[in-house]
Amino acid sequence: MMNVGNPENAFNLAAIPNDGVGLARLEFIINQFISIHPMALIQFDKVADPATREKIESLTYGYKNKADFFVDKLAQGVAKIAAAFYPNDVVVRMSDFKSNEYKNLIGGQYFEMDEENPMIGFRGASRYYNERYRDAFALECEAMKKVRNEMGLTNAILMIPFCRTVEEGKKVIEVMADKGLVQGENGLEIYMMVEIPSNVLLIDEFGEIFDGFSIGSNDLTQLTLGLDRDSFLVSHIFDERNKAVMDLIRIAITKANKMGKKIGICGQAPSDYPEFARFLVECGISSISLNSDTVIKTTIDIKETEKSLGI
Amino acid sequence: MMNVGNPENAFNLAAIPNDGVGLARLEFIINQFISIHPMALIQFDKVADPATREKIESLTYGYKNKADFFVDKLAQGVAKIAAAFYPNDVVVRMSDFKSNEYKNLIGGQYFEMDEENPMIGFRGASRYYNERYRDAFALECEAMKKVRNEMGLTNAILMIPFCRTVEEGKKVIEVMADKGLVQGENGLEIYMMVEIPSNVLLIDEFGEIFDGFSIGSNDLTQLTLGLDRDSFLVSHIFDERNKAVMDLIRIAITKANKMGKKIGICGQAPSDYPEFARFLVECGISSISLNSDTVIKTTIDIKETEKSLGI
Repeated sequence: MMNVGNPENAFNLAAIPNDGVGLARLEFIINQFISIHPMALIQFDKVADPATREKIESLTYGYKNKADFFVDKLAQGVAKIAAAFYPNDVVVRMSDFKSNEYKNLIGGQYFEMDEENPMIGFRGASRYYNERYRDAFALECEAMKKVRNEMGLTNAILMIPFCRTVEEGKKVIEVMADKGLVQGENGLEIYMMVEIPSNVLLIDEFGEIFDGFSIGSNDLTQLTLGLDRDSFLVSHIFDERNKAVMDLIRIAITKANKMGKKIGICGQAPSDYPEFARFLVECGISSISLNSDTVIKTTIDIKETEKSLGI
Repeated sequence: MMNVGNPENAFNLAAIPNDGVGLARLEFIINQFISIHPMALIQFDKVADPATREKIESLTYGYKNKADFFVDKLAQGVAKIAAAFYPNDVVVRMSDFKSNEYKNLIGGQYFEMDEENPMIGFRGASRYYNERYRDAFALECEAMKKVRNEMGLTNAILMIPFCRTVEEGKKVIEVMADKGLVQGENGLEIYMMVEIPSNVLLIDEFGEIFDGFSIGSNDLTQLTLGLDRDSFLVSHIFDERNKAVMDLIRIAITKANKMGKKIGICGQAPSDYPEFARFLVECGISSISLNSDTVIKTTIDIKETEKSLGI
């Protein structure tokens, strides 16, 4: 599978032999084609600064309801990717900006708090049911309903990032159902990212509420080793091939397979290290999602590994 | 055992029935009795601002070599605690400030970088061998040598916090030996904090280089669940009693016992929750270090649990 950010490239990328998209990121679409904080569209009256108001007015020109702008643009972006790869699976990850990233969106300063450690702060699942972001998440749900139910792109699987506890998972599934995204309905599958140590340790319990998994090796490595790989002071220690990280990945794959749940990977590691891709195949991973520039090279390597393993 | 911050209280606290100190924090001593960034003492010429220079000059009055001020004050603070509890063990944790905390010390702005996520940034072991902090760590070592070898307080055990990889552990042990703190010499034991998921997963390998362990349940919970408990936006999710955290703690204790290595705990959890203290006893923990205000109540409870378990 492939990791895809930019919808504009989707049809080109779909020409490369592939089994679908393992990770389509909403963040790229929001940054490039929306660039406004969703809450600034929902609560436009809270945006005080005239220059910011003007920017938002001009970007949403023609929209009576500004929030519809967010829904339309997000749906169009995702639909372009889902259509390009139809009927193959396209796993769409719901938003996973950190507070500092949200703050950089237009109008973001009115809705985001400063956090000392945004990487382990208010992100992913914890936002979706929180009153500070819940209404914005409803717009994401609205867009996904459009893609799947109106446009008929039912190959779009939805994925929840950074889900710390089983309780959070249940809450998010509930909120989504409330917005009309009901698991199983119209074939809807909801996956979970496996990127927090708790996700691996409690994968049996997460498996009872989610339809499948995708390992996020970047965050999993960061948390297993307790480091921020964006800080050059410690980034030299970051290595997905650390034995502790590989142990967790092996446990996650083994247990997911035992439950009969799909488990893929969409982190950087298999694109960067061929030996890491081989390790994943040996563990019995269901799918590997690669950066587009390494898809062919790594896929050939994986096929050879599979042959040598007789699978 | 007890967690002790302020040396001034040490003799009072030692009057409470106890088995020693499971965690003596250098941070309290540095904040209260030194308040200057160690690098600002070593490289005083880099401190440009006249007001800051003056503050440092006045605090270190009488010291020809400003770095000696750091060594003396640190040694005095630690010695007071070690003496109060002599001959019981006193586990002294080497410095574990984060970048933002170091920056707040006098002169800190000249030696600290801004980090986006200091909680998972340049802290603990990663500082001790890095050229940006190595000389400051040498002062900590100098102070500990004074306490143990000159003052004869050989009941002081040294402990390394936030050690992400086995390689880091080896490097730190080497740096310490280089500074005259040789494992085994004069009975010196070096412990490691178990507070990063990798510490638990690779505890067999860490056990080959360290003499004992102490579980830091606060950081371990933060990393296992991927959250910053100082952010009120997600702190409601923080709970040491999450099954993933308790699983890791059980694994750590079981494996350490198998290796014949001491393993204690110095985090908040057993002070806050009696049922957590009971869980630890059932796992076979070697020692529990409590906040002084809960020592008596929790100790009685632990003794009863031990009796009911027949241990």
